[in-house]
Amino acid sequence: MSGGSGILGGMRVIEGSAFVAAPLGGMTLAQLGADVIRFDQIGGGLDYRRWPVSATGKSLFWAGMNKGKRSIQLDLRSDEGRELVAALVSGPGDDAGMFLTNFPAKGWLDYEVLRQRRADLIMVALTGNYDGSSEVDYTVHPATGFPLVTGPTGNVEPVNSVLPAWDIALGSLAATGLLAAERHRLRTGAGQLVSASLSDVAFAMVGNLGRVAQASLGQNSDTVEKDGNFLYGAFGAPFSTADNRHVMVVGLTPRQWVALGKATGLEQHYLRIEEEAGVDLSTESGRYHARKHIADYLDTWFAQRTFASSTSALTECGAAWGPYQTFDQLLDDPRMSGANSLFDFVEQPGIGTFPVPASPLNFGELSRLPAQRAPVLGEHTDEILSDILGLNEREIGRLHDADVVASGNP
Amino acid sequence: MSGGSGILGGMRVIEGSAFVAAPLGGMTLAQLGADVIRFDQIGGGLDYRRWPVSATGKSLFWAGMNKGKRSIQLDLRSDEGRELVAALVSGPGDDAGMFLTNFPAKGWLDYEVLRQRRADLIMVALTGNYDGSSEVDYTVHPATGFPLVTGPTGNVEPVNSVLPAWDIALGSLAATGLLAAERHRLRTGAGQLVSASLSDVAFAMVGNLGRVAQASLGQNSDTVEKDGNFLYGAFGAPFSTADNRHVMVVGLTPRQWVALGKATGLEQHYLRIEEEAGVDLSTESGRYHARKHIADYLDTWFAQRTFASSTSALTECGAAWGPYQTFDQLLDDPRMSGANSLFDFVEQPGIGTFPVPASPLNFGELSRLPAQRAPVLGEHTDEILSDILGLNEREIGRLHDADVVASGNP
Repeated sequence: MSGGSGILGGMRVIEGSAFVAAPLGGMTLAQLGADVIRFDQIGGGLDYRRWPVSATGKSLFWAGMNKGKRSIQLDLRSDEGRELVAALVSGPGDDAGMFLTNFPAKGWLDYEVLRQRRADLIMVALTGNYDGSSEVDYTVHPATGFPLVTGPTGNVEPVNSVLPAWDIALGSLAATGLLAAERHRLRTGAGQLVSASLSDVAFAMVGNLGRVAQASLGQNSDTVEKDGNFLYGAFGAPFSTADNRHVMVVGLTPRQWVALGKATGLEQHYLRIEEEAGVDLSTESGRYHARKHIADYLDTWFAQRTFASSTSALTECGAAWGPYQTFDQLLDDPRMSGANSLFDFVEQPGIGTFPVPASPLNFGELSRLPAQRAPVLGEHTDEILSDILGLNEREIGRLHDADVVASGNP
Repeated sequence: MSGGSGILGGMRVIEGSAFVAAPLGGMTLAQLGADVIRFDQIGGGLDYRRWPVSATGKSLFWAGMNKGKRSIQLDLRSDEGRELVAALVSGPGDDAGMFLTNFPAKGWLDYEVLRQRRADLIMVALTGNYDGSSEVDYTVHPATGFPLVTGPTGNVEPVNSVLPAWDIALGSLAATGLLAAERHRLRTGAGQLVSASLSDVAFAMVGNLGRVAQASLGQNSDTVEKDGNFLYGAFGAPFSTADNRHVMVVGLTPRQWVALGKATGLEQHYLRIEEEAGVDLSTESGRYHARKHIADYLDTWFAQRTFASSTSALTECGAAWGPYQTFDQLLDDPRMSGANSLFDFVEQPGIGTFPVPASPLNFGELSRLPAQRAPVLGEHTDEILSDILGLNEREIGRLHDADVVASGNP
């Protein structure tokens, strides 16, 4: 299961984690070939039953977030279990000594304590807030400002995001941070503590997108409010077809705008719309200010056409559009199969066989590592104790008898 | 402006980009100290006027996405302009020869063409779809399935995301991919083409979160539909306070659930709710199935209390909660200032002074690079031509006279 042939083959990372950001960071590395070992409390961590779940209650989420890793389960409340984890974290090899975690980095998991055992340790510690306090995606997102500008115009209720976008951003940044620190270690020999927090990632991104500047400069009063499904600052909106499908169209760049006008006949109405709305449609701001005039025309155009006929006209002219799909419909998206090697049907023990993604990154010099399943909890306990820590059968047997470690069953 | 003291100090990356993913990938590296040089068509690229904009129409978005980079503007339609870009991409130095782009990687920007000039070139090419075709975040998100499960229960209209979450995910992954490829080059000497697409990143993440498995295994029928602002698969929901603020509370882990019960007096109603809903509230699925019963009680509790009094009770018990804030209110969030060094007031020429974020990554062995502004378009044209390409004043003057290059003014 562990790598060797991927671009990060040979690298070993120990992961102590739960939920999204840290597991996703570790999986990003595992899917590129790193040997990522996730350790868990015997019986599974806080995310071991996270929804969605299978018909028998197995977590499809856990299976999704831990692909390509090895798993060891230990009693993390026992001194001996903690000693084994510390030995793994500081374990042998130039390409090891890397620890990724969102557990509280204190006590036995304090960086200063762990580095006593390996001076060049790289530890990536993810937290909720910059001061180490807790937070989850669902409590950070409300603070960013986005839920109050999401959803139908006029509605003052916030609209939450179902997608944990900040966890995803932090998880990916964790992989970047680990690779940057390892690059530094290769050149200088020095390890270090790398830290990042969920709210810092979120608030920085609000800044990166210009929204903090906009608020600070007092530009918000008449430009930032709920605006339904319109794209902000140019033209983009969803439309309903005669057969009750939804289509998103975008006219952000000049090329996209011209193609949309040609495909739908909208171009014949530019002059009228420009007069009615008092704008220049060749500018992004003109298209944004005239968005309702544009949408009025396109509402009618789509209502008179089926999904198939409207989207084939859009495609023919090179317009930018996307289908709205349910998760079920996504399964049939041609981009999920065919010539694309992103997904493969893989069997996950205890759950079943379903389409599993590999890394979205392709490296031209190496073939793509195929999609890998997640481990069964504790699947690699004995081989890790033996191969990495050098314990013999008798010692491993004693650890099992003392309930310090456990193997895995689907 | 360029680094030297950050963890990636000395690394040089050339960026040819527009909008979010590629600029964000480059900025992630620039904020860690890499010398990232963004080249643009004279007058600015497709994203040079992207909203939000200042009162005078300057793009706050562009200023946000290009922090810490150097800027050169050239006529990319001319042979001589293209030659200069190719020379930069293949420019001198062991720590250079890296190119990040979301421009069409063909013709003069084809990897095979560019590597003729530098055999160990690393090129990270971002596309819309795996086959190289175009896509934007706003056309990919509808295809993932999320807009059809976002928003108020019973409403069949899709709800778009204002946040371009997939662009953010792809941008961050681009930085990871570049560092992984550079690690490989350090060890083997070989460069390569690294590619990733927006829809691959999105669809893989739908898989990572367990939603593809859920659909494929036929688990969707009665568990996946719009569910308002409830957290999926445990307890989490927003509530309105007596003074018309909104508060998000989460009871995902046992610790969070116990704290919420204690803070609000909910714990006294566990038995009644368990009987009424027929569930075990100590399980995540029990809390999810009873979410409306739980919310009924908390609705009343919050309606009788102000924002200040309800949230101080939550904080006292260690409950997981977050405030809903507008972008304006976010400016006053204590996590944006005080002991946190993430944001600093920085002057952006031509726009003004506002809070600007640094990298959310902290490296213990190095001090955090302070927040940096974006360049003025073309601000570094002459110094780049001189220092990297070794052109003399006369040659640079001729390029200006021939309108092949241009300098910058705010």
